[in-house]
Formats: sequence, structure tokens, C-alpha cells
Amino acid sequence: MLENLKKQVFEANMLLPKYGLITFTWGNVSGIDRESGYIVIKPSGVEYDVMKAEDMVVVDLNGNRIEGNLNPSSDTATHIELYKAFPGIGGIVHTHSRWATTFAQAGQGIPALGTTHADYFYGEIPCTRKMTPEEINSAYEKETGTVIIERFQQGNIKPEDVPGVVVYSHGPFTWGNDPHNAVHNAVVLEEVAFMAWHNLVLSGGSIPPMQQELLDKHYLRKHGKNAYYGQKTPSQF
Amino acid sequence: MLENLKKQVFEANMLLPKYGLITFTWGNVSGIDRESGYIVIKPSGVEYDVMKAEDMVVVDLNGNRIEGNLNPSSDTATHIELYKAFPGIGGIVHTHSRWATTFAQAGQGIPALGTTHADYFYGEIPCTRKMTPEEINSAYEKETGTVIIERFQQGNIKPEDVPGVVVYSHGPFTWGNDPHNAVHNAVVLEEVAFMAWHNLVLSGGSIPPMQQELLDKHYLRKHGKNAYYGQKTPSQF
Amino acid sequence: MLENLKKQVFEANMLLPKYGLITFTWGNVSGIDRESGYIVIKPSGVEYDVMKAEDMVVVDLNGNRIEGNLNPSSDTATHIELYKAFPGIGGIVHTHSRWATTFAQAGQGIPALGTTHADYFYGEIPCTRKMTPEEINSAYEKETGTVIIERFQQGNIKPEDVPGVVVYSHGPFTWGNDPHNAVHNAVVLEEVAFMAWHNLVLSGGSIPPMQQELLDKHYLRKHGKNAYYGQKTPSQF
Amino acid sequence: MLENLKKQVFEANMLLPKYGLITFTWGNVSGIDRESGYIVIKPSGVEYDVMKAEDMVVVDLNGNRIEGNLNPSSDTATHIELYKAFPGIGGIVHTHSRWATTFAQAGQGIPALGTTHADYFYGEIPCTRKMTPEEINSAYEKETGTVIIERFQQGNIKPEDVPGVVVYSHGPFTWGNDPHNAVHNAVVLEEVAFMAWHNLVLSGGSIPPMQQELLDKHYLRKHGKNAYYGQKTPSQF
Repeated sequence: MLENLKKQVFEANMLLPKYGLITFTWGNVSGIDRESGYIVIKPSGVEYDVMKAEDMVVVDLNGNRIEGNLNPSSDTATHIELYKAFPGIGGIVHTHSRWATTFAQAGQGIPALGTTHADYFYGEIPCTRKMTPEEINSAYEKETGTVIIERFQQGNIKPEDVPGVVVYSHGPFTWGNDPHNAVHNAVVLEEVAFMAWHNLVLSGGSIPPMQQELLDKHYLRKHGKNAYYGQKTPSQF
Repeated sequence: MLENLKKQVFEANMLLPKYGLITFTWGNVSGIDRESGYIVIKPSGVEYDVMKAEDMVVVDLNGNRIEGNLNPSSDTATHIELYKAFPGIGGIVHTHSRWATTFAQAGQGIPALGTTHADYFYGEIPCTRKMTPEEINSAYEKETGTVIIERFQQGNIKPEDVPGVVVYSHGPFTWGNDPHNAVHNAVVLEEVAFMAWHNLVLSGGSIPPMQQELLDKHYLRKHGKNAYYGQKTPSQF
Repeated sequence: MLENLKKQVFEANMLLPKYGLITFTWGNVSGIDRESGYIVIKPSGVEYDVMKAEDMVVVDLNGNRIEGNLNPSSDTATHIELYKAFPGIGGIVHTHSRWATTFAQAGQGIPALGTTHADYFYGEIPCTRKMTPEEINSAYEKETGTVIIERFQQGNIKPEDVPGVVVYSHGPFTWGNDPHNAVHNAVVLEEVAFMAWHNLVLSGGSIPPMQQELLDKHYLRKHGKNAYYGQKTPSQF
Repeated sequence: MLENLKKQVFEANMLLPKYGLITFTWGNVSGIDRESGYIVIKPSGVEYDVMKAEDMVVVDLNGNRIEGNLNPSSDTATHIELYKAFPGIGGIVHTHSRWATTFAQAGQGIPALGTTHADYFYGEIPCTRKMTPEEINSAYEKETGTVIIERFQQGNIKPEDVPGVVVYSHGPFTWGNDPHNAVHNAVVLEEVAFMAWHNLVLSGGSIPPMQQELLDKHYLRKHGKNAYYGQKTPSQF
């Protein structure tokens, strides 16, 4: 079942150690087959060097395990909420990557300070609010999804324009049109978090965001119908 | 004698360079066989690329060498004190890893600022007090153990809940239910020290600890009888 | 056509991942054949692990594609402006390397603080001014070149003496007498940016530049007719 | 001539890239044969990946080339001054390693803040004074040695106790009883510079040195006649 998607999800998971985004098993990638509504996701707590494509777990949008002998990632309920609320996305990544997690722990979004950021994220990468004790003590992983969705709705941010977030006191989630593209965005988020941290510290804690014109220029030369970067019509958002 | 534990201790020692926790020979791992009360520990000052499992040294809880031709680690007396005071632990690691040692040199504990920390350490990782000149000039390595134990007793901290410490002006010690798990905790301690340092500097030196509810949630979803992370009942604390 | 230069440009591009200067495809190297006025440059958005020497694109100084099936780098117009304004240079590199980009995002030049800097750059590595909305919205990549040239002219800086710049909110450009030498200077720029950032933060944000006599001494022992570093007359500037 | 020393010096030079202490050719190691008074040193500006043991250059204590076709390191005169003034040393290393050079550029010594430092350096690693324009413009490399020696004499520091220094606006020099031990000390100096920088920034710029008793304890358990670290009488200082 969904052999191709399992392979994609497996390969995308294996990119996390390649790009230095994870320590031990602290990350997970999923992908969705929009036709069946089935999600393929990494199993919980399995070491990367023994994991195989067939270990990937298939769940439906209610969290029922459809196929696989292993427990799905403990963050599965967060992935499900995001797939339900953001119909345009096809893959999701969660990590505890160092620089993004530093912003999450600071409770701060990652400001747009340069063209590296603007090439992928159309404005600040937001940070969610603190979760309430009730949210934490009830369906915690599901509510983690809820606060992400709330942040995008209240900030009037399109998930296609800003394909990532940092969750307060936790770490980053990114997404994309497929699992591989979601990992790509996780790498970029880490890179811009690195530079933003160094800019904030160099400036003593505050730095104005980049010019709006330059943000527009770089984002739109890579995204949307007038894009002219690369060799063909971009398939990624 | 204790061939299996020697192999475990050797392999755990070899993980220290793999995870980037040591320079030269600046680290040591030990394990204890609780039945015999014998400890297996790395020899002192031997290079990692020539060290073999049979070089591991066996000592008893009085520090007598039971087997092996090499001198045991110069920190052996510290390990012995910890094994005597913390009966639940099975392995100990000492390193001079960069980020943890920075906190040790600052004389500061590592605050719990996010879920990465909460997944492994149930609260701040404490720093010991300065040792007195008398402690330094008498049985120094034994007294290093004494100040660690004192810190956990006075802070009412269970060593199973917070499996690590930074020793004032020195560096980190971590422990676990076996040598491998102790190394695992050394890696985590280094990772959360990295992020905590960056959070402290970004915030200008002070940052409130994470919400207690979130600390509880993450620690308890991986530890104790209601844990639901991973594939089976967790064997590690 | 220009097979030798294509090989040089290809190999110089492949040095960018080797030296850790790029993530994904975020960089480009070009070289010029001054006799024909033709420029060889990396294609846009092609992955490094599949790129071949024959993928390099040949353009003329008006930006017309002379040879090659792929689109040239989206930054080609910037390269062209620099080749036209700086007749002594033979190769150009653009990256988003982390430390140099941090200075670009801060809108600050990289001060000359030590002999590492002085061995290659005869004074501060300047930062360009903000571009106007008009410049951004018209021929953006060409205007990026214009503001670099303006900065060198207004600062009375010779491009041979200071073979690099950081572009406001964007990243570094470096150049050299050939593509390989331009990469060499990109590595040095990143290295001195690393150290300058750490010096600025350690000093609380301001630090005087190094002594002029020491800057002179180190720059001139490696460059110009009285150079005495290395094994022969230096061919690089 | 001196084939064994040439091999040692060559191998010690090759450790510099292995330990990440150099970029390009920015470093050099030498060794001395005290009987003949001949020094073996790396040639100037030769790439590490093509350098061979037979490329090492032999010079006497007046700087005359005794053997070898290549020019010796441009820093040879500094090495000679140190060998003449410090009769107990057998090898010298110079690099532009990042963290040590940051302290050199700051004009600050590296304070003794923990046992990692105390295990190798018996107190602060000093920084030389600024050189005068006259010193820079006359026999610059020789005078670089002179200011190092002056710093140790005026500070009443024994070169055996503190086997390294940072030269103002330049970078580190370390030494040892042989070339390999000098590299060892260069690695340690970089490591303690890393941690000291992070401690200074975390503390807002000032931090008291470690307790004298602890400095004594750690230095003397590895050095001198009562040392008890390792497997035999230490041969290194």
C-alpha cells in the first residue's frame, strides 16, 4: 500500500541526519496521499541506521493505524491537524534542530533579515503562543497542531507563503508540497535561524526587518507565475 | 572476568569521539556489575584509536584494582562515590564537552528551557558548589563525587530524574542505567547546553524556565509507567 | 568553445560545497575570457552533485546566451556589471555563506582586525548601501552590480586591493584574477567574518581597526613587487 | 640530514588540517635538533595535500638555509628567536586558528577558567603588546619573537608552564618538547579559547579566574615529579 509514498517518506526521513537536523531519533517526516486521505509517517523512536522503508506507518486522518506493525511517531496527531487545516501541503517535517529550537525556546519568531530568507519564506517565520495547561494535559499533540493553525489564521499568513513555524518551548515544524520539499524548507529554516540569531546578538537584540520591496522581489522571483529562477516552472512553494 | 561489561564499557567509551564529546583522551565511561560490586572503567590517558576492550580496568568499590595492567582513569574515585550513593545507576560518563564545560566554568546550572531538555532531564541540570581548598588538596577525585552527591541531596533531586550535573570549574558527569545510556544522556546534556547558552545570550542573561506543565508532559510521556513514546516499555531512565 | 575556462569555472563551482560556503544551489562562480569578452557561468538552480563541466553557460557582456541549453545563473547580470567596471578581474563568486551574510544582513562592513584579514584584503571589506525601490523593481540583478561599483568608487577602493564586498541584506561577492582565486578569497572572507563577528560581540559592539602599519606590512609581504611570501612571484592579487 | 626530525616535523604539520586548526597554508610547525642547532621547518606557502617530508627546510639559528630547495616559512625568524630564548623547547607551532585568533585580535589573553585549561597551561595564556611601527617596519618576523619573549620575561612566566601565547592582532604560537607535543598544545589552546570566549560573553565580559588551588591541583597532577595522570612518567610539559 502506498509503496511510492513510503519510499519518499523514508528517503526524506533519512535526509534529516544527512543535513545535521537531528540528534538520535528527534525528528519525523510524513507525507499524505490526498486521494485516499492516508498519511505515511516515521515510526516512533526507531534508530535511523536500522530504519527501512517498510517500517513506515500508514494512518488515516482520524489517527487510526491502517498498516504497519510499529507505533507511528508520537507527533502524528500534530501532523494530522496540519494536513486537515492546510489542504495545499503534501509533506511535513518536525525536528529539534539547534538554531530553530533556540528561537522556539526564546518564544520568538525568526525575522526576515535577508534574501536567503526571502527566497523561501515570505515574511517572518512565526512562533506559536504558550499552550495552556488544559491543552498540555488533554490531547497535547493534537493541540500542538491547533496552536500552529491558530497562529497562521490570526496572523493572516498563508501556509504556502511561510512554510514553517516554531512551536513555543518546543521546536520547528516545516511543510512543503511533498516530503522532500518539506525537508528542504527545514534546512532553510535552520540556516536563516542561524543568521538571524547572530544578527540579533550583534545588534544588541533588535534589528529592523528587511525592506519589503526586497522581500517581494526575492520571494516572487522564485515563486508564483512570474518566477524566473532555475530551469523550469517551479513545482515547489 | 566481566567480559560482557568490559565490551559494553569499551563500546560506550568509543562513542565519545563519535559524538564529538571529547578531544584527545579527555573523557571516561564506566559501568558497574551490581552483583559483584565491581566497576569496569577506561584506563587513564590511553588514546582512543589504540584502545581495546581488554584494556578496560576492573576495580572494586574501595578503589582496589582487581584486574588489568593499566592504571584506571584518574577520575575513578569520583565514579566510585557516585555508584555508592546512587544505587539505581549502572553507568557513568565524564567529559570536557564544550558547551557543558562552558556552564561548569560559569558555575551555572543548565536551565530547562524546552521539550528537548524535558524529554530527558526533569528540571534544571545543577552545578555543584566550589570545592574548598581542603577538599581539593586531600582526596580530590573522591571529594568531586561528594559535592555532586551533596548537590542532589540538598536540592532534593533524584539522580534518576536528572541524570547529569556540571561540576564547578570542571565539566559534566552523566549517568544512566547502563554505560550506553549514560553516553546518550551526555549527548543530550551537550545539546541542551548549546541551546540554553544561546537563549541566555539572546535574552541578555536571564530567561524564565519553561512551563512546569510542559516539563511534566514531556518528561512523563517518555519516562515512568505511563510513557507512550517509542515502541515498548522504556528501559532507560 | 572555451573548454578550458568551462573546466576552470566548473571546478571552482565545485569548491563551494567543499569549503562549506553553500547550502543547496545558493552560489555561483563565473570566469571571463577577456579576449573574446565571453563569460562562462554556472547554470541557474542546478544541483551540485549532478552538474557537469558542459552544463556551464557562455554569455556575452550584453547578457546574450552564446552557448549552452540551460539558463545562466539568475545573478548573471551582476557578474557582467562587475566584469565591465573592474577590468583587472578574471573570476567572480557569489554565495550566501553564513558569516559573511550575517554582516550583509547587519548592513555592516567587515573591519580589518588582524593579519589574517590583512594578508588578503587591504582594509575593511565594505557593505553596499540599501537599494532603492526603483532599483529593486527594475533591472534588479544589474543594479546589484551598480551599487557594488558605486561603493568602490565612492570609497576610493581598488577592487584589486579589496577583492570582495557584502551586499546589503543579501550576501558576499568576491573576485580574483581567475575563478579559483575568487573562491579562495570567498573562503578568506568567510573566515575573517567569523572572527570579526566574535570580536565585535566580545567587545560589546565596537573595536578599533588594526594598526595601519601592520595592515601594510602583511598585505605587502604577500602582494605587489616586494612580496616575499611563498615560493615565487605571486600571481594572485 | 636530520631525516627523523624532518619526518616528525612533516607529520606534525599534517596534524594541523586534521585538527581543523588551519585554512589553506596558514600555519607552520618546526622542530629543533639541539645538538646541531639546526631547525627543520615547513616551506612557505606550499599546499598541504602535495607537501612531502623531503620538502621540509633545514635552517640554522642565524636563519641560513642549510638544506632544501624551497623557501622556509615566512615566520622562520620568529621560530628562531623562540628557540634561542627558550632552551627547553623542541617544537613550535603557529596557526591562525579561529578562536585563538579572536583573542589575538581582541588583544586579550585567555583566562584560566577551568580544569581543561589547568591540565595544560599553568595560568592565563598571555597576549603580547602591540608592536611599534619601527618593529613592524624593520625585522618584523624576528621582532614578533622578541615581543613574545618580552611578555614571558616581564610576566615572569616560564615557557614550560604556559606553552603558548597569542600575538596581538595576529594569532597563536604554541610550543612543546617536540613538534607533536607543540601541536597538542595548539589544539588545547584552541579548545580553551572557545570556552573562554563563551564564558566571557555569557558573563557580560568579565569573569574571575578559577581558584588557584584547583589550578595547582590539575596542573600538578599531570606535570612535574608528583604527576599521577596517565600510564607513566609524563614526557611532555
